[in-house]
Amino acid sequence: MVQQQTLTALGQRERKADALERVVGDARYGADFSLPGMLHAKILRSPHAHARIRRIDYARALGVPGVVAVVTAGDLRPGQAGAAHDAPAEAYDPGHEEEHAAGSRPNASRTVFAGAKALWAGQPVAAVAATTLQAAEEALGLIEVSYEVLPMMENAEQSMQPGAPLLHPNLFTTTLGVNADTPSNISTYVELVRGDVERGFREADVVIEDTYRTRMIHQGYLEPRATLAKVDPDGKLTIWVSSQGIFAVQQQVAEVLNLPPHRVRIIPTEFGGGFGSKGQGLLEPLAALLAVKTGRPVKMVMGRDEEFKAGRPGSPSVAWVKMGVKRDGTITAAQIRVIMDSGAYPGGPVGAATNLSFGVYKVPNLRVEGYDVVTNKPPVGAYRAPGAPQAAYAVEQHMDRLARALGMDPLELRLKNIAGEGDRMPNDTPLPRVGFRTTLETVKRHPIWGHRPSKPNQGRGIACGMWMGGLQPNSCFLKLNGDGSLGLEVGTMDITGTRTAFKQMVASEFQVPTERVAVTTLDTDTAPYASNSGGSKTTNTMGSAIKQASDNLKRQLQSRAASLLDLPQDQVGYRAGLFHSLRDPNRTVSLQDLGARSVAAGGGPVLASGSAGTFKAAPSFAAHVVDVEVDPETGKVTLLGYHAFQDCGFAVNPTQVEGQMQGGVAQGIGWALTEEYVFGDGVMRNPTFLDYRMPTSLDLPLIEPTIVQVPNPDSPYGVRGVGEVPLVPPMAAIANAIYDATGARITELPMSPERVFWALHRKS
Amino acid sequence: MVQQQTLTALGQRERKADALERVVGDARYGADFSLPGMLHAKILRSPHAHARIRRIDYARALGVPGVVAVVTAGDLRPGQAGAAHDAPAEAYDPGHEEEHAAGSRPNASRTVFAGAKALWAGQPVAAVAATTLQAAEEALGLIEVSYEVLPMMENAEQSMQPGAPLLHPNLFTTTLGVNADTPSNISTYVELVRGDVERGFREADVVIEDTYRTRMIHQGYLEPRATLAKVDPDGKLTIWVSSQGIFAVQQQVAEVLNLPPHRVRIIPTEFGGGFGSKGQGLLEPLAALLAVKTGRPVKMVMGRDEEFKAGRPGSPSVAWVKMGVKRDGTITAAQIRVIMDSGAYPGGPVGAATNLSFGVYKVPNLRVEGYDVVTNKPPVGAYRAPGAPQAAYAVEQHMDRLARALGMDPLELRLKNIAGEGDRMPNDTPLPRVGFRTTLETVKRHPIWGHRPSKPNQGRGIACGMWMGGLQPNSCFLKLNGDGSLGLEVGTMDITGTRTAFKQMVASEFQVPTERVAVTTLDTDTAPYASNSGGSKTTNTMGSAIKQASDNLKRQLQSRAASLLDLPQDQVGYRAGLFHSLRDPNRTVSLQDLGARSVAAGGGPVLASGSAGTFKAAPSFAAHVVDVEVDPETGKVTLLGYHAFQDCGFAVNPTQVEGQMQGGVAQGIGWALTEEYVFGDGVMRNPTFLDYRMPTSLDLPLIEPTIVQVPNPDSPYGVRGVGEVPLVPPMAAIANAIYDATGARITELPMSPERVFWALHRKS
Repeated sequence: MVQQQTLTALGQRERKADALERVVGDARYGADFSLPGMLHAKILRSPHAHARIRRIDYARALGVPGVVAVVTAGDLRPGQAGAAHDAPAEAYDPGHEEEHAAGSRPNASRTVFAGAKALWAGQPVAAVAATTLQAAEEALGLIEVSYEVLPMMENAEQSMQPGAPLLHPNLFTTTLGVNADTPSNISTYVELVRGDVERGFREADVVIEDTYRTRMIHQGYLEPRATLAKVDPDGKLTIWVSSQGIFAVQQQVAEVLNLPPHRVRIIPTEFGGGFGSKGQGLLEPLAALLAVKTGRPVKMVMGRDEEFKAGRPGSPSVAWVKMGVKRDGTITAAQIRVIMDSGAYPGGPVGAATNLSFGVYKVPNLRVEGYDVVTNKPPVGAYRAPGAPQAAYAVEQHMDRLARALGMDPLELRLKNIAGEGDRMPNDTPLPRVGFRTTLETVKRHPIWGHRPSKPNQGRGIACGMWMGGLQPNSCFLKLNGDGSLGLEVGTMDITGTRTAFKQMVASEFQVPTERVAVTTLDTDTAPYASNSGGSKTTNTMGSAIKQASDNLKRQLQSRAASLLDLPQDQVGYRAGLFHSLRDPNRTVSLQDLGARSVAAGGGPVLASGSAGTFKAAPSFAAHVVDVEVDPETGKVTLLGYHAFQDCGFAVNPTQVEGQMQGGVAQGIGWALTEEYVFGDGVMRNPTFLDYRMPTSLDLPLIEPTIVQVPNPDSPYGVRGVGEVPLVPPMAAIANAIYDATGARITELPMSPERVFWALHRKS
Repeated sequence: MVQQQTLTALGQRERKADALERVVGDARYGADFSLPGMLHAKILRSPHAHARIRRIDYARALGVPGVVAVVTAGDLRPGQAGAAHDAPAEAYDPGHEEEHAAGSRPNASRTVFAGAKALWAGQPVAAVAATTLQAAEEALGLIEVSYEVLPMMENAEQSMQPGAPLLHPNLFTTTLGVNADTPSNISTYVELVRGDVERGFREADVVIEDTYRTRMIHQGYLEPRATLAKVDPDGKLTIWVSSQGIFAVQQQVAEVLNLPPHRVRIIPTEFGGGFGSKGQGLLEPLAALLAVKTGRPVKMVMGRDEEFKAGRPGSPSVAWVKMGVKRDGTITAAQIRVIMDSGAYPGGPVGAATNLSFGVYKVPNLRVEGYDVVTNKPPVGAYRAPGAPQAAYAVEQHMDRLARALGMDPLELRLKNIAGEGDRMPNDTPLPRVGFRTTLETVKRHPIWGHRPSKPNQGRGIACGMWMGGLQPNSCFLKLNGDGSLGLEVGTMDITGTRTAFKQMVASEFQVPTERVAVTTLDTDTAPYASNSGGSKTTNTMGSAIKQASDNLKRQLQSRAASLLDLPQDQVGYRAGLFHSLRDPNRTVSLQDLGARSVAAGGGPVLASGSAGTFKAAPSFAAHVVDVEVDPETGKVTLLGYHAFQDCGFAVNPTQVEGQMQGGVAQGIGWALTEEYVFGDGVMRNPTFLDYRMPTSLDLPLIEPTIVQVPNPDSPYGVRGVGEVPLVPPMAAIANAIYDATGARITELPMSPERVFWALHRKS
């Protein structure tokens, strides 16, 4: 890390680039955009979790004054999207479209509207655009949908039973890319095997097995989805979107409306949180469809209840785990069977759940099975490290149980088995350089490890977890301005403070103050391509692009400076905004000089670009230590202290890294103690922040972050992904702490007062 | 011009990129932008053409409900701009600031507000920001300014007299960069001499001299100036601007507010015409000042009357010309003394007026003198080929008179003396390859040249003119999108259809349809540097940048294609969206393939930039032929036909070139026949479109353009500047036609019915 000494802005605590504008209300989010002549749109949603749709009659809705258009799946028939109707339809009869609507792996357009069947309560059935929101809402009540209610699959274990009613008649289980012969509600089956688990269990001195359950949870971002779509006079679509990735939404809208992507321009708004869920568009295709149909701008904003019922929440899971260890702590065998409930469509995070389940430990004999199963629940999306927290809740409790069975310190048991460079993941890929052991040793050396809570009903838990980090391409434009300042243009959405980190990188490359660097997010027409901000990758992957662009720009400037100084290029050095003669440091040319010359006459403006497409995996790792006190009268768990340790490779902006660590833990505490979707007849019954209980600042202890830095050798700045891994350990850590405090082992989330109370009751 | 055969989009009649959005009212101009909490601002202007300002008392204005702030020159004292006042001032007393306010060459901040003196009627004295426009306007009436009226210089000839009262006590005449010793109202004196004019006149068979006068005229753009300024929470300014150049306005605002330019972000709006005038900001520094003072967004829109009285109109001029020719038509000597009235500040177009006066002819003995003189009129700005029409009105009439005196065809006289490559301009620079002669020969061959109007009171005139073309830098970013389409990003304002031309260039480079190219104008934070759109240069200079970026992008793509085809790079060809094996043309990789691969994994996004800074001059040339009929009873001139011939180098989009030619002629007809600023006591008395009479479509004949193409060897596409030169010949051509029809020689603009009537009267 030579860079750290010379590239001064890196590693500094830089104020978040957009902090002030957010605080004073100046930032413009999705719902803040409007246009003259704009229509407001609302969605009619299925009240049933599974129902055949016989007919949708919207003649009366069209009669509401102010209502301009109604769209249904009928508007998405091939060749239909955006077509002007000679006589406007007033009803939609799915007829023989069942195959279409209920096809195998639904593509983008098939998830927009219910066709012949509604597959979950909350699924869009129709959408109305009207001159006022009131008219649109009134019209929703006048759309007559004739439903035939079907049997409903409320959970994955039920849904995967042989003979269970099928959601998608053409969905076949995929195993290693091969489809099964008969349709099933299991969309994917994963099996990863190493060695001989049965022999491994025979070699073990202690074998424990159990089943662990997690619930459907919502990401709980502050900003509900909102969008504004307009059709340009030449038919090109422009859509304002609050999203994790403008190019992903562009692709999706283009697919639904059957347009080439370049005919869809996605303009990003400021972003009020997504945590994975907003990696795809939900409203955008509908708003676009209505804009095309009406020729007017269409605004669509989701209510909080719609977000809960029809957002893209995180997967519930069931994991059965069996592990065996020798008396000295060596793991001899491990087995996990994890079932991910993906809601109405295929696409749960079974890949990460299976591969990361035993990614941090050396397991000589391993058998991992995973199932991705569709149910009549809202379709899931990504939620921060999707799949990994679910697996860790099981495996990291199991590690705790094994340590107790052996009488070993749980940290020592982990250190005994921790994987390192070259060790193989469950899917057989070898680990690159990682900071697993270094992080655990940092915990061990930390003062808190020697100071355990000691009062009655108090206890401590530790758990760890990993995340691979995303590796999709990113790119940037870079320019020197006339006043010697620098401009960086990107297409990545800033969801974790990445603009600030980019600014620090450019500032460091040129050894100038960060205020001399502007970082701007462009749109799909103008931005250099960016992959979604998600998967813990943006700072890492864009770092490579920024380094490339900076090097290129510096080379050009050095050449111009050499020419001005009348020196060969290799006789010109650079330091803190000044090119100088290596022989005579007093002969200098400043960035300002070069900037001023570039915009007047001479060589012309100085521009560069950077593009990064291939990366090596750079897994991140977290170990969390939590102290709790459990009220034996009520079962309420109070967190006394929380210490999060994490290897982030290199912390470009330690404040932002700590913020990610604290935020991830806060969400994990919600998963652990209070959050869950409560269903009745397949309908989510608690779609408000009063009834879906996320932790507030009053519920949280000080979450104390400790950054560990084991550089990623593939990143010019040593960066690893930061955002996801803090959500992996909390649930298991808290469960382990509750056991430590009470002797009660809780294997199901949320570990609510009621559930803890009954666990204490059962134990005693 | 090999390119023309293969680069298919070049030279095609492409629909203007922004045509539809303008037509349907979708384009957003300066006044279309608003922000929450926005204030409306209005300017108090001096009613006097020259007056000392004793005190500005705005206590009562501040008392108007809704008024938030008043600013005066007091807010521009050094260190003052944007400073929060402990106790808000309620008055401004210029006191001893005379030297400051009336300093030598006023910099940006000194032209914003009148200081100790008002120098022209219409000059801003104070500005008010209020919650409503009504409150701001009411407050203007309550600002008490105590003026002491001073003697006024109404025209340049009066102002340049020795002993004339001085406008700027510290303004000294500059001659070849050297200041005179004593102050003067003459800001610049130019003298260009070749050979011996006295000897040349002695060698001539015919010598004619006369004086010609042109008036102050307004560019008459549809969109009056409008701006919206806001201060970001961190103090950075963001300003929406309708301008010819965002970087120029950025520089100006930064200078006035004493900020580094990168702390000012200029966002361009759609643009409703400027013709040179909007190369600088007028409202922007004031709106910015008020935004800083109030902390709120401030919108400022000029009324049409304000545009007339306080825009930046074109210079009036007086030109005395003397020319001598031999009997065979050879020019032996020429002399011109041209006085440009620059209004209240130095900066008239005396450079172009002098150098272009005899740029198109070979003149062995030449004496050119020019004066730039300040007067108490509105300060002038650029108006399409600034200086050239004024000089051509004199010289091209003179050519006509010499031809008549010699009994020669006026076209033949011009062909006899026309300059060509290597001939020297008045300022001694040699002409590069030009199309002067080719254009004149095209006129000669054109059918109309053989068909003259022949009825009584009808006549024909011909005149020509040149323009050097601007040469400032331009640059661009270029990217390949995931769907194989292309995106070009620029910072140039599109005032003549340049986005369309750029689109054609990129489409041609890649041999794809133009709809697969998006061209977007960014802002000062994000755009690659662009010089002002003006001076007839944007298509020419950006063309070089686009070629560079396209070549770079193609090289990268060829390398990727080669790798995919498993061929050495030199074995890979390209045609119409497909890279192919040179040996086996069926082995191909498409742009779409490469785009899709670039955004998934692989090499990463494909980006390039282009930067062009040094150019060779590429003069453009026009020859106009006009037929008129003069009503002897009223003096009214009716145009029977108008043919404009112009060398544009290469016409990227012939429709746009023709549009520029027709537009320039239409403006020239206004200069020629109807337009003038009418002053009384130094105040413009006709500041409406009723009284300042611009031609409407009903006043115009069909203006028939003929494009001549003599490629500019310095441009990859052969492009020359197009926009300015069509305004150079019309006034002289029409004067010559009037003479041809009536025998009356008019030497003063506008050649209104009244002036023509009296000329006919004097003649008879």
